[in-house]
Amino acid sequence: MSIFDEELKGLKEKILRMGLLVESAIRDSIKSLVERDSELAKEVIKRDHDINALDVEIDEECIRLIALRQPKAGDLRFITTAMKITTDLERMGDLAEDISERAIELNEEPPLKPYIDIPRMADIAQGMLRDVLDALIKGNSKLATDVIKRDDEVDRLNLQVFNELLFFMIQDPTNVSRATRITYISKYLERIADHATNIAEMVIYMVEGKIVRHVTI
Amino acid sequence: MSIFDEELKGLKEKILRMGLLVESAIRDSIKSLVERDSELAKEVIKRDHDINALDVEIDEECIRLIALRQPKAGDLRFITTAMKITTDLERMGDLAEDISERAIELNEEPPLKPYIDIPRMADIAQGMLRDVLDALIKGNSKLATDVIKRDDEVDRLNLQVFNELLFFMIQDPTNVSRATRITYISKYLERIADHATNIAEMVIYMVEGKIVRHVTI
Repeated sequence: MSIFDEELKGLKEKILRMGLLVESAIRDSIKSLVERDSELAKEVIKRDHDINALDVEIDEECIRLIALRQPKAGDLRFITTAMKITTDLERMGDLAEDISERAIELNEEPPLKPYIDIPRMADIAQGMLRDVLDALIKGNSKLATDVIKRDDEVDRLNLQVFNELLFFMIQDPTNVSRATRITYISKYLERIADHATNIAEMVIYMVEGKIVRHVTI
Repeated sequence: MSIFDEELKGLKEKILRMGLLVESAIRDSIKSLVERDSELAKEVIKRDHDINALDVEIDEECIRLIALRQPKAGDLRFITTAMKITTDLERMGDLAEDISERAIELNEEPPLKPYIDIPRMADIAQGMLRDVLDALIKGNSKLATDVIKRDDEVDRLNLQVFNELLFFMIQDPTNVSRATRITYISKYLERIADHATNIAEMVIYMVEGKIVRHVTI
């Protein structure tokens, strides 16, 4: 294996590590909501620094590889795609942080209702993230296409959560502040799934040179 | 001027052209809402293809410049930043498209209330976009920092719009569907301003090598 191959392998491992950090941030932010565990939420917020640090580290490594190794077509395209993808990962981390902040606020008030759709949305979004990074590393556009399809279900659940909570708000105005916060969390999850979809589109473009933006969505 | 300098100048012009297209998409989407002009909204949706086409074109040009000209430190950093920034611009264009879709829906029903804060939000967001691209081209981090500061005002207006519309919904449930669509538009504008902020952070990083994410916001 050449030095460059080793470096490329190291880059891929770093991206996967960043993905794992984001995935556990999403999972723990929802856990802190469902189990009313504000300490866990605070931990997620603290851990976001590690995600940001990795983002910068990967960025620098990509620039270094481009400048020093002058990679050819396919490798260059992988590296520039990686630089864009980490931006999406970093923003997914931010959204997990936002969820944690809302969870802390919600945990200070009595529960409004049990959470059913929100953990489901989070499960789907985490699966999308896992699979889209797998698709990136393997250069598998079929897997990426499958990720894009799952975004519809998250959108549908987000709308369902919104409608249900609107009903709570209209029924009793004292529910408004809590219900609003829960709709925000649902919206954050929908945006996390959107980022996974964006990554999937970039992977398909990287592999096939085909633009799927605004066609499949 | 060397060929590479010419090419770099051409790249900068393309980024500015893409920025202008996004800016007029935002302006016209809000105009289609305020003046209840669904034909204009449909035009914005159609014109989004031009924005996407430019995004791909700039991306390809960046890859080509990196591969062929093997740019050095500062230029390489500008080019990789440009690739990331066009992703944000493209998503701002998508959000203008989303605004237009909600405008078309709203134009089919009687007006709920005059729009005051939403055009103000759009004005601020457009100014942020204009200035952040200026900051990118000039490598001016002070201008970029100023853009980040203006994001707070957009966030404040978004919250104000949301609270006001919540009041309309609670008052009379027949307002719910229209009020919800308007809160969506306000949220889209808030996200457009977020993208401008993200670009500003990348410009500062490009110029100063300093991370401002999660510090100033």
